[in-house]
Amino acid sequence: MAESIGFIGLGQMGSAMAANLLSAGFAVRVYNRTPERAKPLVDRGAILTASPEQTATPGGIVVSIVSDDRALEAISTDALASALGKGGVHLSMSTVSPETTRRLAPIFASHGATLIAAPVFGRPEAAAARKLWICASGPAGAKQRVRHVFDAMGQGVFDFGEEVGAANVVKLAGNFLLTAAIEAMAEASVLAEKNGVSREALLEMFTQTLFNCPIYVNYSRRLIDADFDRVGFPIPLALKDMRLARDMASASNAPLPILSLLCDRYVSALAKGRANMDASAIALGAVDDANLKWD
Amino acid sequence: MAESIGFIGLGQMGSAMAANLLSAGFAVRVYNRTPERAKPLVDRGAILTASPEQTATPGGIVVSIVSDDRALEAISTDALASALGKGGVHLSMSTVSPETTRRLAPIFASHGATLIAAPVFGRPEAAAARKLWICASGPAGAKQRVRHVFDAMGQGVFDFGEEVGAANVVKLAGNFLLTAAIEAMAEASVLAEKNGVSREALLEMFTQTLFNCPIYVNYSRRLIDADFDRVGFPIPLALKDMRLARDMASASNAPLPILSLLCDRYVSALAKGRANMDASAIALGAVDDANLKWD
Amino acid sequence: MAESIGFIGLGQMGSAMAANLLSAGFAVRVYNRTPERAKPLVDRGAILTASPEQTATPGGIVVSIVSDDRALEAISTDALASALGKGGVHLSMSTVSPETTRRLAPIFASHGATLIAAPVFGRPEAAAARKLWICASGPAGAKQRVRHVFDAMGQGVFDFGEEVGAANVVKLAGNFLLTAAIEAMAEASVLAEKNGVSREALLEMFTQTLFNCPIYVNYSRRLIDADFDRVGFPIPLALKDMRLARDMASASNAPLPILSLLCDRYVSALAKGRANMDASAIALGAVDDANLKWD
Amino acid sequence: MAESIGFIGLGQMGSAMAANLLSAGFAVRVYNRTPERAKPLVDRGAILTASPEQTATPGGIVVSIVSDDRALEAISTDALASALGKGGVHLSMSTVSPETTRRLAPIFASHGATLIAAPVFGRPEAAAARKLWICASGPAGAKQRVRHVFDAMGQGVFDFGEEVGAANVVKLAGNFLLTAAIEAMAEASVLAEKNGVSREALLEMFTQTLFNCPIYVNYSRRLIDADFDRVGFPIPLALKDMRLARDMASASNAPLPILSLLCDRYVSALAKGRANMDASAIALGAVDDANLKWD
Repeated sequence: MAESIGFIGLGQMGSAMAANLLSAGFAVRVYNRTPERAKPLVDRGAILTASPEQTATPGGIVVSIVSDDRALEAISTDALASALGKGGVHLSMSTVSPETTRRLAPIFASHGATLIAAPVFGRPEAAAARKLWICASGPAGAKQRVRHVFDAMGQGVFDFGEEVGAANVVKLAGNFLLTAAIEAMAEASVLAEKNGVSREALLEMFTQTLFNCPIYVNYSRRLIDADFDRVGFPIPLALKDMRLARDMASASNAPLPILSLLCDRYVSALAKGRANMDASAIALGAVDDANLKWD
Repeated sequence: MAESIGFIGLGQMGSAMAANLLSAGFAVRVYNRTPERAKPLVDRGAILTASPEQTATPGGIVVSIVSDDRALEAISTDALASALGKGGVHLSMSTVSPETTRRLAPIFASHGATLIAAPVFGRPEAAAARKLWICASGPAGAKQRVRHVFDAMGQGVFDFGEEVGAANVVKLAGNFLLTAAIEAMAEASVLAEKNGVSREALLEMFTQTLFNCPIYVNYSRRLIDADFDRVGFPIPLALKDMRLARDMASASNAPLPILSLLCDRYVSALAKGRANMDASAIALGAVDDANLKWD
Repeated sequence: MAESIGFIGLGQMGSAMAANLLSAGFAVRVYNRTPERAKPLVDRGAILTASPEQTATPGGIVVSIVSDDRALEAISTDALASALGKGGVHLSMSTVSPETTRRLAPIFASHGATLIAAPVFGRPEAAAARKLWICASGPAGAKQRVRHVFDAMGQGVFDFGEEVGAANVVKLAGNFLLTAAIEAMAEASVLAEKNGVSREALLEMFTQTLFNCPIYVNYSRRLIDADFDRVGFPIPLALKDMRLARDMASASNAPLPILSLLCDRYVSALAKGRANMDASAIALGAVDDANLKWD
Repeated sequence: MAESIGFIGLGQMGSAMAANLLSAGFAVRVYNRTPERAKPLVDRGAILTASPEQTATPGGIVVSIVSDDRALEAISTDALASALGKGGVHLSMSTVSPETTRRLAPIFASHGATLIAAPVFGRPEAAAARKLWICASGPAGAKQRVRHVFDAMGQGVFDFGEEVGAANVVKLAGNFLLTAAIEAMAEASVLAEKNGVSREALLEMFTQTLFNCPIYVNYSRRLIDADFDRVGFPIPLALKDMRLARDMASASNAPLPILSLLCDRYVSALAKGRANMDASAIALGAVDDANLKWD
């Protein structure tokens, strides 16, 4: 009989990941605040439940990927923890602050269960293609226990040790790194265009040579095509992550000027009415300042 | 009989590139301000000359790679241009401002010769391994004519059209991009270390996944090992390039905050006595601000 | 018989202000978390109470000046509001976010009382000398009613209207302005000193001419004398205020680069172990970056 | 008989200053590149000359106030120096780099004359009203000798010693300080307006209290009225000064983040077509970023 697994949070990412669990042969019990989003999964055999805790089986595994710290807190209740019980694992894959993860872990521990932080890198297409990169932290035994679940969703797992917040630190640092790369490409593009070289010529060269890696290759296409309305990751969520990074930086006495700049760029994007654009539209800040138009 | 080629500028980069021309079978006539540096090349058959113009043969090719705009101006004389004469090509591979290139091109044109800008990406090891990436701009015919010379020195050429300064624009934009990547990695590392994750764990993950490209792979090693005293590219030269980029940005009405930050970081590095460190030591700015020590 | 007035919060500022109320002839009922600090006031006739609400008289006035938003929330209870009751006024003089003020006002309104925001400008010496500048916002009638209390503590009141958070906005904007002035003086001083002009000569000229106003005159003395250990306003509190300003900016879509810089400067000051220094020690950031020593 | 004095440079500032010299009873010999600008002075008795050196009398005083370093170099010739000769003084009141002043001083010294740097603070109205503040540096004897000339043009002189570039350092630092104050007021205004407080209410309070000094009082009026088209000091000249300050900072290893920001703000203003606005329009950068409109 198939192993039963719980899944909470059916946004673009979660839906694709849960589908992969179904494909891998798991029996998946799903929960989402707006249950309508579960339909495609239910059509494929998933069972829709009425509460987060109903996704759990005693000693089983529940995966969650929700929109922010508050949503994660809302599901990380004693009800869920006791439904999981001894040996159970809550695999928390949302992008949240390490602080939140550290605060929630004892709730699960007090019921004999374990919270594992396992945020992911990859946009919805990567999730659908089982190409996510997963960062994991928390007790070694529990990470070992969920290894086959990771394998059903991602192309690789990086282990950041037993301190449960560590993977969240890495995730926020990674979102910072990729946003910084977009801003840098935008500034380089503006510099080039103001001096007679198209951003296409510039970025195509660099993404074939020094910067031939996914972040530069993928986002340079966005910049070249001014393709910001097709939303993979909306600006308000991107700003949320930059703020989590900044708050973490600030609380740990780490002054980081590019991080501050990126926050201000997103804040400006919202001021300019770009809430419905993709996060890569942060590039338009440098474009506006130089009074260029990208169409 | 071997084609004779002139070569001006025998720094770390130039010496490796001239050696490759010898290896490729060219007869190489070299000039350097301090002639002692020519010895290894002379031992391998190069001919040492007493002036830039003596490296030229009528209608031939002279390659130059010198330290800055002033040094390029000093060799780009009517004497050199007339020694090259009709059909001759000055292949200018230094990192200089596009403005300088544009100002010098007519000197060569007035003698029937052509100036081609062809700055390169790659550190001395890459130059020795014939792995340079070359950006070229200038008249198409002349670029075609020097194609075999490019092939003897690099692994690929990108053509940025006939406007002679264009390749210099790309080179400066590229140096900006890679320096921004180092600063971003430094900030991400500080953020991680202040929150319990080593920069090694962090950077190894990203350079195997989202950022698995030469700039991130190579420079992350420098940061992880705090390997700043082994100098591939000294800070004063790196600052020179950032200033050229900033002056170009400023003159063309392009306000670029990360570029400004990088200039200030290098200025601070000099204030702190780091003139003899590698350019990657720009990373220490974020480290100092956070009061960390990297050993 | 003397009018009775409540006073909550006996830090450096509050103690000086309560003393002025005594001097003006009010009967003052005080409360402080650590009651020992009330001794000098009790010696002068103040009555020490055991809770915030015991400072209140029905329909009377209670002044509070506490350390942060959380402390203000802790005292702004239904107990205090109902002790004040109909016609009572809570004069809230702390530096807090406008959001907090807006959230607490209805608690008082629900008991017929009124919350007035009235943060002040001035260091403890100014408070003692009755030289505070007071910014007030909230219902006009209540502001009118406490006018004589303002007069006993400050040299002037500026009315920012009926929206109760407005005065908090002004206070945070003012702290930003004065911190920006210190940073600017620090940068100008570094520029001068690196080029052969002492910061004393520089700042004395400007504070006698273009910038002959209290902020520049007072803080330039701190910079000239490198007098940062005598604490009027400790760095952690200054950072708290900059963060409130930044959060307010961020929430209202206002990207402000100098504000971001000032936050990072204070964060760096804490990283460097300067928690016990005066807020004016933010100046040392520019000094460190330039590798100068100010003694 | 009236003392004869030379005057070179009849821009808005120079014309007002030369007029004051006439009013003070000097015989003034003027020179300007575009001689038409001399007409009002000639009408009042000034003598128009055909070259800078013709303004000089042996052992006399020549005042100059020209637009930039290049213009100062163009007039600071051996011809002018020898026309001044032994005991003569060139009173250089332009805003230029200290480096330029230091390089030009020996030209005068070699003819027995003396160069004094004496840049001024004040807009054209202040010049007309004899309200300039003058910063002076150079040999003490020469400064003493021109004291009565200073008195005819300004309300006060600050002596920065014998190193001739010192006064230029102070002038550039001062322009930085005042531009930083405008940017800070702009950011504070944006913060206030995004949170329900008008910039007028905000700035009027601060300019009556903590910041009741000329720079804040005068420029806050500009911001409140969005009065940027009435040009006292055009943006291109303001940017020129910020660049001189930045180049000086950079050459002396002084990394100054607000200075870098101000340069970028002016560069952006030019990109946006604001070359004909007053320098105070730097404020519009923060306004644009926040998507406000100031009319």
